[in-house]
Amino acid sequence: MSNIDSLRTLLIDQLRDLLDAEQRLTKALPKMKKAATNDELGEAIEAHFAETEEQVSRLEEVFEAMGEPARAKPCPGMRGIIEEGDEHISQKFADDGLRDAAIIGAAQRVEHYEIAAYGTARTFANLLGHEEIADLLQMTLDEEGETDKKLTHLAESTVNVEAVEAHQ
Amino acid sequence: MSNIDSLRTLLIDQLRDLLDAEQRLTKALPKMKKAATNDELGEAIEAHFAETEEQVSRLEEVFEAMGEPARAKPCPGMRGIIEEGDEHISQKFADDGLRDAAIIGAAQRVEHYEIAAYGTARTFANLLGHEEIADLLQMTLDEEGETDKKLTHLAESTVNVEAVEAHQ
Repeated sequence: MSNIDSLRTLLIDQLRDLLDAEQRLTKALPKMKKAATNDELGEAIEAHFAETEEQVSRLEEVFEAMGEPARAKPCPGMRGIIEEGDEHISQKFADDGLRDAAIIGAAQRVEHYEIAAYGTARTFANLLGHEEIADLLQMTLDEEGETDKKLTHLAESTVNVEAVEAHQ
Repeated sequence: MSNIDSLRTLLIDQLRDLLDAEQRLTKALPKMKKAATNDELGEAIEAHFAETEEQVSRLEEVFEAMGEPARAKPCPGMRGIIEEGDEHISQKFADDGLRDAAIIGAAQRVEHYEIAAYGTARTFANLLGHEEIADLLQMTLDEEGETDKKLTHLAESTVNVEAVEAHQ
């Protein structure tokens, strides 16, 4: 258990949690991509995989700027969300469109976890006056927001409509 | 494991996941409230507890409108997020303001999980043409969004600033 003696320590604690979350994601996203059928969804997951690798490097940059080792701390939140995604996606689906819809639901849970966690870390960095660090975290936050919007668009425009048409 | 044979079944699957998430939350929020020191934060958590109870009733209403029993399905995502919140909050803090900041971080992870999950369910209800159900889900979605904004405001305006002042 850490001893949180300052806002700086609390920020580092949050960053270590995020590093673990991102590292778990780099393992989970290829599985999601493999399960996806819709081309646009597959491409969106692949693009987010590349982005996630970039976000890990950006987090390492943040640790360096704070003069701290980039050490991850187990993140039970992301662990649970990925476990849930696996469960949802491995159900028996009547068609691929329905599985794609379930994948989108799982991916949006992942995105929103990250939006919450990066938002908290960014606010702490701002309060500490670490503008450069806040900017790096904001960059990732913007990317997560964009991915979430792309997924909502996919859910509305492609995947689920096919599923409705096939089964109503 | 469920057999997802239609978008309707997938929506019910999502609703059962949400019901479990909300039920877990009604147990977790009183603990968060007890751990909070800042009055505004305590009031915000208490208000959200009342809202969560209302949201459970609203979900039961949705199940009834769909002619389905309101049966929950274990939600590993919310379980992990609550476990993480417990871990973060029970660390050793140099002062109450820092613990409050950690509580806000945990609460925002909860809110964003719900925003993602209700968003998915609302989109499915819309695609199925269940307007009444989509409206009920949107009502909760709006409340979750408001709570998240309130928490961001608290983080920026009250809790963390105290922590910075005490420890810089």
